Amino acid sequence: MAYNVPPLEELIDKFASLPGIGRKSAQRIAFYLLNKSESDIKAFAKTMLKAKSDIHYCEECQTFTDGEKCSICANPTRDSSTICVVENSKDVMALERTNEYHGYYHVLHGLMSPIDNITPDQLKIKELVSRVAKGDVTEVIMATNPTVEGDTTALYISKLLDPFGVKVTRLAYGIPVGGSLEYSDDITLVKAFEGRTAIN
Amino acid sequence: MAYNVPPLEELIDKFASLPGIGRKSAQRIAFYLLNKSESDIKAFAKTMLKAKSDIHYCEECQTFTDGEKCSICANPTRDSSTICVVENSKDVMALERTNEYHGYYHVLHGLMSPIDNITPDQLKIKELVSRVAKGDVTEVIMATNPTVEGDTTALYISKLLDPFGVKVTRLAYGIPVGGSLEYSDDITLVKAFEGRTAIN
Repeated sequence: MAYNVPPLEELIDKFASLPGIGRKSAQRIAFYLLNKSESDIKAFAKTMLKAKSDIHYCEECQTFTDGEKCSICANPTRDSSTICVVENSKDVMALERTNEYHGYYHVLHGLMSPIDNITPDQLKIKELVSRVAKGDVTEVIMATNPTVEGDTTALYISKLLDPFGVKVTRLAYGIPVGGSLEYSDDITLVKAFEGRTAIN
Repeated sequence: MAYNVPPLEELIDKFASLPGIGRKSAQRIAFYLLNKSESDIKAFAKTMLKAKSDIHYCEECQTFTDGEKCSICANPTRDSSTICVVENSKDVMALERTNEYHGYYHVLHGLMSPIDNITPDQLKIKELVSRVAKGDVTEVIMATNPTVEGDTTALYISKLLDPFGVKVTRLAYGIPVGGSLEYSDDITLVKAFEGRTAIN
């Protein structure tokens, strides 16, 4: 059922086009915004435009930042011998939360995927290679998701980095902590077996 | 964990302030938008501003419209003897979908609620009274939600309309079609008993 009010329909369409927002939620948001003051709407629109104009890729690791370098790359106390390669900026935050890794990152902004027509040249792989070529790095940790696309991308990059003689590693596959064998899928179990480690 | 990028934080905050969007979804949307082109973001912002500037209340029924009157009020073939009073514009659409009601509507834009500090003068009640005062209307159907606020508002309006001698009715309470007695709450069952009708 349409509302017969074109600007309202357009507003709903725009919100419904965002990830994770269905048509019902988009309607709810549209009505919510219409009940807000014009200055609130202007502030919202301005925030969107400002974010787009101010935020760009860090010149080193390619994550989103509003400065020249992101706060991690600008930190000289981190371990410059390792680079952890991730799919997107959200993954950097997930890994930073652990407080376990103290090297630098590299954000690919996607994964190779023939089905979605994403080829290596659309990812920030060239930038990674030139960082490794500088010679400081001794280990590149591939922390792409454990999916076909993640594995393919990790393998592709490891081949590319071969000539530089750096160690290329991959995050461990296995049963998540707190998970159960009963509900783990077969491939995870196989990988958990393959990756078994000595207890002492 | 913060991203240390103020414009990004602001963008996430704005989306997280919308109804039905949590912080995780807001992050996802923010990153999605940052990967869109600047013209896409501008179009999104423009749609929001245009909706806010073009859409206002229908001068008759107070629903959202971009014309002087909404498409329902502008339709002279509808039954001018009844007005159906609802809380918001979404309710108009819900009732229109049924194709059962052919009179006009009146949107209150809220319900009386002492807890939320919403008093009758913040609702479009004056406008309803002046429509009824014109004399065409013989029945006002209160279709506010069956909640404390909805009932209070309906009762308040019915008292206000007393002097005009119009019939004021209320939508029936009862078990939803397809629902089951087992899962109905007690008050609904009591109301269903009270409102029982003869089968033939």
